[in-house]
Amino acid sequence: MIYERVALIGLGLIAGSMSLAARRAELAGEIVGTARSAETRAIAKEINLVDRIVGTAAEAVKDADLIVLAVPVGAMGMVAEEIGPHLKRGATVTDVGSVKRHVIETVTPHLPDGVHFIPGHPIAGTEHSGPRSGFAELFDNRWTLLIEGDETDQDALARLRKFWEKMGANVGIMEKDRHDLVLAVTSHAPHLIAYTMVGVADDLQRVTDSEVINYSAAGFRDFTRIAASDPTMWRDVFLTNRDATLEILGRFTEELFALQRAIRTGDGEHLHDYFTRTRAVRRGIIEAGQDTEAPNFGRGQKKV
Amino acid sequence: MIYERVALIGLGLIAGSMSLAARRAELAGEIVGTARSAETRAIAKEINLVDRIVGTAAEAVKDADLIVLAVPVGAMGMVAEEIGPHLKRGATVTDVGSVKRHVIETVTPHLPDGVHFIPGHPIAGTEHSGPRSGFAELFDNRWTLLIEGDETDQDALARLRKFWEKMGANVGIMEKDRHDLVLAVTSHAPHLIAYTMVGVADDLQRVTDSEVINYSAAGFRDFTRIAASDPTMWRDVFLTNRDATLEILGRFTEELFALQRAIRTGDGEHLHDYFTRTRAVRRGIIEAGQDTEAPNFGRGQKKV
Repeated sequence: MIYERVALIGLGLIAGSMSLAARRAELAGEIVGTARSAETRAIAKEINLVDRIVGTAAEAVKDADLIVLAVPVGAMGMVAEEIGPHLKRGATVTDVGSVKRHVIETVTPHLPDGVHFIPGHPIAGTEHSGPRSGFAELFDNRWTLLIEGDETDQDALARLRKFWEKMGANVGIMEKDRHDLVLAVTSHAPHLIAYTMVGVADDLQRVTDSEVINYSAAGFRDFTRIAASDPTMWRDVFLTNRDATLEILGRFTEELFALQRAIRTGDGEHLHDYFTRTRAVRRGIIEAGQDTEAPNFGRGQKKV
Repeated sequence: MIYERVALIGLGLIAGSMSLAARRAELAGEIVGTARSAETRAIAKEINLVDRIVGTAAEAVKDADLIVLAVPVGAMGMVAEEIGPHLKRGATVTDVGSVKRHVIETVTPHLPDGVHFIPGHPIAGTEHSGPRSGFAELFDNRWTLLIEGDETDQDALARLRKFWEKMGANVGIMEKDRHDLVLAVTSHAPHLIAYTMVGVADDLQRVTDSEVINYSAAGFRDFTRIAASDPTMWRDVFLTNRDATLEILGRFTEELFALQRAIRTGDGEHLHDYFTRTRAVRRGIIEAGQDTEAPNFGRGQKKV
């Protein structure tokens, strides 16, 4: 056991998976959960997602040793304001938001002295959301980033790190602005691009929806998975990691224009060189165990 | 049996899978194969990919009833020129290229009277290529498009359709320019976008390769799968379906700029509405059986 009592604020994919992963490794004496929506609380209760469900965040954090903020990034400040007065001295507060600078700026002012705030971000997820979407293996061999600043309490950090490692994750420590830049590259820009492409396909009057759907296997369907992620979460990510996302999208557009020019002028050598280089990135990801080598993600066309 | 003798010109992912799928359903008396590279021919022989390997395309098509051109789109015309004089009267020639107008324009002039040319395109594939990458189930429940024009021989078309259906595919009939537009949306533009994003990430001096690789699970790794596809094939696709691809990329850029503006101005409602709409496209694809509902494509995080 690492924490006597863990409070989960929000009961979506990440919090639900944390509860199941913490149970699997027996990391908490009791896991208390809450969610703003009564329906979410009812489902969590029905499927026994946490040990105890309560009606408010203020109630959930009472006597908790670890508090996990697992709500959309745009709601973090509000939740912090609500729980601030009820936090136990010596408790650790963490979060699982995809953006770190904004969360730190909005949460920190509401936390009392003697409470340790260690922002976090599990780099794991699926396109599903809600209390039924969690599973204990979500973090296995995935990375979780914890944010260290000048005033970080090292004992609290070490304990939270152990908690994540026991839930199956590799843990990395990163500075907040670096986190927001790296994630703009590996996550935020790709998501916006996928959303855009799926929106364009859906909009095109000259191509029917059934054509888009039936012939999606040619590449497009991977975009649709990404573009099926939770709209509220992603709205908040883009609004709160605006500068880094726009910077990367600027680089993307520049490069896209260069490739479009190569297509227009028939510069096959430029295209071939570019496409050869990108293959190497894929190999790196497979070697690092961050994806499967099975063709098509082993989508099951190869029957076993 | 549908064809007495089938000749496969090129022995990559598609041709290899066709051989295995045709064997599975006993659709051909003999399958003859050839490839330009001696190494490819040697591997195909070693793994018994086809019934007989020959050294040249001219030799392969001798007495063949169905000839499948399974080479990069840019090489189709050259192959047609080579085999033209050796084709049997009454034979059907088809291809599996991702672009149709260009293939028709470059292949047709080389085919003698009495030979039926029915262009085709299986909407199926993986990021792997080469003679070892094929598998018999590749076309199961995927769509194959056959191109019909004013002069298409209906008997030859019906026979080829049956051949594809017996290999597991759903078959659609489409006009060549419509094909090139639809595929620009569902395949060509998404591939160029994925290549671009992976190239940008790889290029960024400010983010290390290991950061990109370790934190790829956040969305980026799906792009890397697409961007790991065969460089020669894709160079040819873009060069030969230039107009439709550039048109769709133009629409994409326009829409991306609108979303960037919404991020810059903090228009959360616009973003949320857009992201909600794109979820519906995903549902359509799953309902049509063109992808799995398993989270993350069932990447195996959920152990079974």
